[in-house]
Amino acid sequence: MTASTIDRSVIEQLVRNAIRQSGGPASTPVAARGAANPPGWIDGKPNLRVSISARHCHLTDEHVEILFGAGSVLKPEKDLYQDGFYAAEQTVMVVGPRRRMLGSVRVLGPTRPFSQVELALTDSISLGIDAPVRHSGKIDGTPGCVLVGPAGSVQLTQGVIRAARHVHMNFADCDHYGVQNGDMMKLKIVSPDCSVTFEDVLVRADEAAKLEVHIDTDEGNACNLDTATEVTLKKGGCGCEKK
Amino acid sequence: MTASTIDRSVIEQLVRNAIRQSGGPASTPVAARGAANPPGWIDGKPNLRVSISARHCHLTDEHVEILFGAGSVLKPEKDLYQDGFYAAEQTVMVVGPRRRMLGSVRVLGPTRPFSQVELALTDSISLGIDAPVRHSGKIDGTPGCVLVGPAGSVQLTQGVIRAARHVHMNFADCDHYGVQNGDMMKLKIVSPDCSVTFEDVLVRADEAAKLEVHIDTDEGNACNLDTATEVTLKKGGCGCEKK
Repeated sequence: MTASTIDRSVIEQLVRNAIRQSGGPASTPVAARGAANPPGWIDGKPNLRVSISARHCHLTDEHVEILFGAGSVLKPEKDLYQDGFYAAEQTVMVVGPRRRMLGSVRVLGPTRPFSQVELALTDSISLGIDAPVRHSGKIDGTPGCVLVGPAGSVQLTQGVIRAARHVHMNFADCDHYGVQNGDMMKLKIVSPDCSVTFEDVLVRADEAAKLEVHIDTDEGNACNLDTATEVTLKKGGCGCEKK
Repeated sequence: MTASTIDRSVIEQLVRNAIRQSGGPASTPVAARGAANPPGWIDGKPNLRVSISARHCHLTDEHVEILFGAGSVLKPEKDLYQDGFYAAEQTVMVVGPRRRMLGSVRVLGPTRPFSQVELALTDSISLGIDAPVRHSGKIDGTPGCVLVGPAGSVQLTQGVIRAARHVHMNFADCDHYGVQNGDMMKLKIVSPDCSVTFEDVLVRADEAAKLEVHIDTDEGNACNLDTATEVTLKKGGCGCEKK
């Protein structure tokens, strides 16, 4: 990878992906629940994708109007892998204590019932906010921040988190791996000189979801995901004993 | 941890440490090679320390003089855990392509026969330099950069790396773990909602070394080392199957 592609992949893109063939436990395709081809499956089996979520935020309709002007709505710029979700054209400035800030944090759509800022721990440290590891939506008692847009600003009293690792999957994927919504899995990433096994990967199951692990930039950079040669998702045990 | 302690631990300190009781394979103390108490041992057994190395650089005597003025030497500011090594008072600016820079990168002493800049991948991306994962000193063919000090600047033609994970240990530690210089080990970090097993941890054995794993800030932040409750170093297998 050259410096210019690093630049492009990190600065201009919101999400980097590593798409690999799943090394799941079942060696033969599992029949989906009445569907010939569940979302995201290729050739009758799940296709594991690992994506790095760069820092981003979710906004309420009300906050979109305050930050970008009355009548404003989010403008989709790029579709995410999960159907119906997108990176918006809009970005906000996130301001922490002692006037530290992140100048341009991408807004993801669609809007939500609450606003939330998702940072990697490195971002959180540079912003001076102690963001706890939380699953999306679990923001009670988390720190707040100030969001600044071209038309106004919003004081969030809570909602700054480090998003916990998770894997989106549909129910056919659940059957394939023998897991259900809320279970924890392990993800092994084989990468030259910096292989890692991530534990505590929460299963978030939904009928329409496509199999995709979300890790943050610290996690993606810890294993240099761009150079990974193999990714394996496991129900229990990280598979290291077989290597 | 409050925002102010994050600030202090990351901005002002060079190295953060997690000191834990070793969960090594031997349940009884191993006799050291003729020494009553090998370096770093406590109560007759190794005491595993995991340290985060923030970005830093090593300089030659010649480069110290160019950057800080004729006759300059490194001034120790803070001793590192390994005897004889220190964070110097001096810092340099590291400049990458397209005028991106890291304004204040700590110099570690003592000086070396070659200058080298060690970054986390996140640093490397923000600097616009594609730093490969390398073990210290293995800098052939790596990218260069410009170092700027108060008295002058140096163009490094190579030497910018992401330091590969490694563990310093003495020969009594080697005996304890059943490894030798150059072997690879695994380090499991148990941390709330973000446990990780790091593979590819290189053994760097030396008579005077104290048992200490060095990971970088991305790796430390990926597992939120500050909140870790348990660290385990293993010769083979990450121990996950026993959890």
